Amino acid sequence: MCLALFISSSLQAQEHPKLILTKAGVEKMRDELGKVPLFDASLAELKKEVDAEIALGIDTPVPKDYSGGYTHTRHKKNWFALQKAGVLYQILDDEKYAIYVRDMLLQYAELYPTLDAHPKTRSYARGKLFWQCLNDSNWLVYVSQAYDCVYDFLTKKERKKLEKKLFRPFADWISVENPQFYNRVHNHSTWGNAAVGMIGLVMDDDELVERALYGLKNAPVNTGEKDNDGGFIYSDDGKAGFLANLDEPFSPDGYYTEGPYYQRYAMYPFLIFAEGLENVKPDLKILEYKEGVLLKAVHALLNLSDADGEFFPLNDGQKGMSIYTSSLVSAVDIAYHYGGNNPQLLSIAQEQGKVLLDDSGLAVAMGLRDGKATPFEKKSINLSDGPKGKQGGVGILRYGNEDLTLVFKYAAQGLSHGHYDKLSYSFFERGDEVLQDYGLSRFVNIEQKGGGNYLKQNKTWAKQTIAHNTLVQNETSHFKGKYETGSRHHSELYFFDASQSEVQVVSAKERNAYPGTEMHRTMALIKEDAFEKPLLLDILKVTSNSSNQYDLPFYFMGQVIQTSFDYEAPKELHPLGKKHGYQHLWTEGLGNANEENSKFSWINERRFYTLTTTTTAADEMHFVRIGANDPEFNLRRDAGLILRRKDTQHTTFVSLIEAHGSYSPVSEFAVNSKSSIAAVEKVHDDEDYTAVTIETSNGGMHLFILSNKDANNTSKHKLQINGNDYSWSGPYYFK
Amino acid sequence: MCLALFISSSLQAQEHPKLILTKAGVEKMRDELGKVPLFDASLAELKKEVDAEIALGIDTPVPKDYSGGYTHTRHKKNWFALQKAGVLYQILDDEKYAIYVRDMLLQYAELYPTLDAHPKTRSYARGKLFWQCLNDSNWLVYVSQAYDCVYDFLTKKERKKLEKKLFRPFADWISVENPQFYNRVHNHSTWGNAAVGMIGLVMDDDELVERALYGLKNAPVNTGEKDNDGGFIYSDDGKAGFLANLDEPFSPDGYYTEGPYYQRYAMYPFLIFAEGLENVKPDLKILEYKEGVLLKAVHALLNLSDADGEFFPLNDGQKGMSIYTSSLVSAVDIAYHYGGNNPQLLSIAQEQGKVLLDDSGLAVAMGLRDGKATPFEKKSINLSDGPKGKQGGVGILRYGNEDLTLVFKYAAQGLSHGHYDKLSYSFFERGDEVLQDYGLSRFVNIEQKGGGNYLKQNKTWAKQTIAHNTLVQNETSHFKGKYETGSRHHSELYFFDASQSEVQVVSAKERNAYPGTEMHRTMALIKEDAFEKPLLLDILKVTSNSSNQYDLPFYFMGQVIQTSFDYEAPKELHPLGKKHGYQHLWTEGLGNANEENSKFSWINERRFYTLTTTTTAADEMHFVRIGANDPEFNLRRDAGLILRRKDTQHTTFVSLIEAHGSYSPVSEFAVNSKSSIAAVEKVHDDEDYTAVTIETSNGGMHLFILSNKDANNTSKHKLQINGNDYSWSGPYYFK
Repeated sequence: MCLALFISSSLQAQEHPKLILTKAGVEKMRDELGKVPLFDASLAELKKEVDAEIALGIDTPVPKDYSGGYTHTRHKKNWFALQKAGVLYQILDDEKYAIYVRDMLLQYAELYPTLDAHPKTRSYARGKLFWQCLNDSNWLVYVSQAYDCVYDFLTKKERKKLEKKLFRPFADWISVENPQFYNRVHNHSTWGNAAVGMIGLVMDDDELVERALYGLKNAPVNTGEKDNDGGFIYSDDGKAGFLANLDEPFSPDGYYTEGPYYQRYAMYPFLIFAEGLENVKPDLKILEYKEGVLLKAVHALLNLSDADGEFFPLNDGQKGMSIYTSSLVSAVDIAYHYGGNNPQLLSIAQEQGKVLLDDSGLAVAMGLRDGKATPFEKKSINLSDGPKGKQGGVGILRYGNEDLTLVFKYAAQGLSHGHYDKLSYSFFERGDEVLQDYGLSRFVNIEQKGGGNYLKQNKTWAKQTIAHNTLVQNETSHFKGKYETGSRHHSELYFFDASQSEVQVVSAKERNAYPGTEMHRTMALIKEDAFEKPLLLDILKVTSNSSNQYDLPFYFMGQVIQTSFDYEAPKELHPLGKKHGYQHLWTEGLGNANEENSKFSWINERRFYTLTTTTTAADEMHFVRIGANDPEFNLRRDAGLILRRKDTQHTTFVSLIEAHGSYSPVSEFAVNSKSSIAAVEKVHDDEDYTAVTIETSNGGMHLFILSNKDANNTSKHKLQINGNDYSWSGPYYFK
Repeated sequence: MCLALFISSSLQAQEHPKLILTKAGVEKMRDELGKVPLFDASLAELKKEVDAEIALGIDTPVPKDYSGGYTHTRHKKNWFALQKAGVLYQILDDEKYAIYVRDMLLQYAELYPTLDAHPKTRSYARGKLFWQCLNDSNWLVYVSQAYDCVYDFLTKKERKKLEKKLFRPFADWISVENPQFYNRVHNHSTWGNAAVGMIGLVMDDDELVERALYGLKNAPVNTGEKDNDGGFIYSDDGKAGFLANLDEPFSPDGYYTEGPYYQRYAMYPFLIFAEGLENVKPDLKILEYKEGVLLKAVHALLNLSDADGEFFPLNDGQKGMSIYTSSLVSAVDIAYHYGGNNPQLLSIAQEQGKVLLDDSGLAVAMGLRDGKATPFEKKSINLSDGPKGKQGGVGILRYGNEDLTLVFKYAAQGLSHGHYDKLSYSFFERGDEVLQDYGLSRFVNIEQKGGGNYLKQNKTWAKQTIAHNTLVQNETSHFKGKYETGSRHHSELYFFDASQSEVQVVSAKERNAYPGTEMHRTMALIKEDAFEKPLLLDILKVTSNSSNQYDLPFYFMGQVIQTSFDYEAPKELHPLGKKHGYQHLWTEGLGNANEENSKFSWINERRFYTLTTTTTAADEMHFVRIGANDPEFNLRRDAGLILRRKDTQHTTFVSLIEAHGSYSPVSEFAVNSKSSIAAVEKVHDDEDYTAVTIETSNGGMHLFILSNKDANNTSKHKLQINGNDYSWSGPYYFK
């Protein structure tokens, strides 16, 4: 395939621009100028930015800073300015922009040969312009586009100088000189691969393109070395390159194993290089690769966001990152243009308020102009994890217009950015977190906070199991917090069923997090007519070959309203434990649970919530506050409630989360501020079946029965509970 | 004046409705139906609400609950339903609404005579329908309007029954039977006065109207008794009634001494009763009383809100209460209609999205329809406190479009809802708090939290000095936290000057909070060209006849970014002190300040802030967290930084707050995240003058000199600093 591809494609691709912009595309854009509002607006915005940069003058300082520092920020601004100026030159046909690109590139061509590895030494793979090869790769992904745009404007001599002194050594530095960076299955490498491939496409250098697609030849395989985030540097099989990065981290559903925050980050190089390949080497059919996984990935990513468009902070994810980020503008535009013109994508583009200045962006802007947009509908969705979709996944249950969203994680480790949080979940009402996933501990690009890099607490807190809404056994994280072990395992989907409007269920099992202990968690979003909003039922069945202490946290957002149990608030605060994240929790309250049901209500964002959970008087309830052993205030002082069950072998936690009512500080009315649940009861619980009744305050009674061993949709089940016979088919019964 | 008034007015006012609606007004409304969008929309909204209530059926339960409970909420809903149904009957001329009002009133007339004082005993003045007379008065203020609307619909016999069994005894209960409630200068009494007066106007009962205007005859004077909030029940001079409540708590500028939260609450009875008096007894010229203080009060109140329209939480104030509350709809509409049709008020009415269904609301809606609205401009403003404007005040410095707002409080005690926070301030950027005033400790109407009433922590924390951004001497609140003492004193304005765009200054002195110690605080909002936003300069000069410990807190909102000083984070948390609010603070960090300048940066709502303050190495820096000794989680876990200066007699604190830059989690760019202040220095400080230099990172240098003893605008001053001569006139020099 390789040879054929390169022979056919090298016949075309003689003229520039050809990478992201094309000659034909540019002509069409020029024809449409002034006729396509969002395209015109995006162009005007870009022109303003670039004109301001040109007015400032060119600066290519000698590199010295970490992220957030001046030289870092300046080189970062330069890559954007170059790429944008290149586009403006093509669309507006104004030499001013080409001159700006040329002059800056030539300045870089003087600077680059004088540089050794970046003076800051923290990275496992130091760049030259930046402290890590990753940022050098970002630079080249953008700057190769700029070079393509001014290629024909430059003299042959200038091109030769740039390629010899800047681009070729630049591409070599981030690849052959840094195989530990380049030859991985990792988002870092994706940037590296795209950078090398894109400059290769522009320079018509097939060796570079091949290096991009298939990785380095003869690079080391697994040496046990790790990167700064603790991830393994080399894979076992030596697979690398752009295609391997499509094969490995993406599931067939388009879920990226590191989670949406990194998927968002990787989307740009994936899609922009793919667009370049599609333009320059169409025979490769890159967008059809792995059954169109690149376009599926855009769909998956859009669904991995809350009602405000913010990505669920699974694994290392910075909260607030959203579908409005620029890499999603590319993703949405490219997915629209190359993926069959799905009109729902137009409404997202509309909200993004800008388009790419290329063929795909023009297509989107014209679609919007022509009134083709339809609302983007997010529904419940199950996304498998793993290259073949066999390594667990993430199940999302939604109700209504995203009024309530459950995000249930039963995925693989997620590479070096993964958290030890098997069967954890987070819960949202509209765009607000009700029960949070902490996310990462990092202030990205805020230099004063640890250089803008991952903070120590990311490892000691954010990745630990106790930082999540899932079970901790004996105050020890899943897999003992060991990456090597975690990376070998994943949870198993038991079943996912979002086909019924009254009840949607996701259920999964985890057998490896604690050897000898099996966890089976089932979460259901149940609509009951008497309730304004659906109930969230959580059944966590734990089976073990030993007696253990189990901690089940609820990281509620907001302020305590009421508890049904008594507790004492200590006169001084001590950390809850010594390691595995427990050292970061202050105990703010400690009490014993109620016999049968313990209730806890809180208020957040002017809405009320109540937890009703089955307990015995021997269970402990710990109110905790994040922030112990955090001398630099890196952690948010958020609260949690931990249900602790000691000296227990088998047990089943049954909890109900009720979203209810509202409070207005303007009208001062508190509406429906109290729980409408009278009781939750385990009425049956053995190896085969677990049955739970939910009794409402108005006398309503519901029964949920889970078949613990057989999730087959057609299997028939029979069970007698309190003298009544129940029979059904499929994994659960609900009435 | 009394007699003349009553003679002339009793000649008119024979027909109904006459109180808030008038016969002529109703005719005009009917004519305009369908032609005035906001009026029509408000009417439709009202109709929907009332129709839903009518469908539910009438319920007048036997009272038993505190606020938030069913009977409380039901009777509260009833008063609104009655008032609204009355209005609908008049405007729509549909008997259904009159019947609903009649039937419910007759039901109340059966219930009321069977009631004794409310079974809940917590109030100093128990009502009958509600646990406090205050809520009974609320009820009557609304229901008297309903009665007026259906007056002519009822038979004479029905009216007689209602007046004899319900209204007259109701009015007596909240007045003659509860003089400790009725005969005060207090917002409670204002409601009581309005209630009695309004039903008096409807019933044409001049004795009630006189009781409303002038209070009870022969009621007790100061007995030393206090209400639930710790306020004195009876005044020294025995002044009471509606006019006394206009005389006393309002300053000539319209500032209400309890603060905006209670002003908002009192605005409705003040204005609705005034409207009734204007309609029924126009000769009284109530709106011209005290040079039009009622309308000035509306203007003051609108200016006591942040960029989002939320009131500054001075004294006891619940955050989130805003100009969008219904009492402000009345206030704005009435102020527009009776106050000269100020077109700026229309833009507020537009945002409120509804109007009163009376003459004033119709006028507003017609003004909007006719495109007369102009933007409401909030500017810097100084509002005096005290009946004659001689008891301190509140100074508000604003810059730009409310981008930065300083709220500086140098007022009187503020009656029983006052806090011990002389010379305190809060600072806002747009609608977000940068340095907060904690507000009250109460979950208004959330029954689970202490019955929805004031919590214990309101007294032990929220009112205490340490809960505010002002100086605490020897860990003791101002006036030792004694209401009797605090009520006798107020701070003194030194000067207020918002006439210059480059620098705006407010300055005040406090001599009584700590006998023997004088505090003189001067705050300036300074626009410097090199800075994107103005700087806030804070000079707090303390002169004492003894050596003391001084604590100066900064209740910053958000998360710590960086400190210039070292500190230790304790391994366990202890309360900072034992009383005066200190028992509620955990010490999260303790260090020594830097010699000369200590700096502290934080981030909030995606914007950066830096404090630069003059210190010596002997000063302590305490990071604190609210929440110690708070077993029911009534307090928010917000942070603070306290600058502690020990064993000091005279001292001057000089601090600079710099708002700078921004962070976007979407672009992940941190813009201008670092301070641009190189140094702040006291270059001169004696009895006569205090001079401060501000050196910026780009080498700029500014000098601010304050004349400490002479605030006269025309006085000439001369001062030599470091060999340079400065001369100027007026209280300050700035260059």
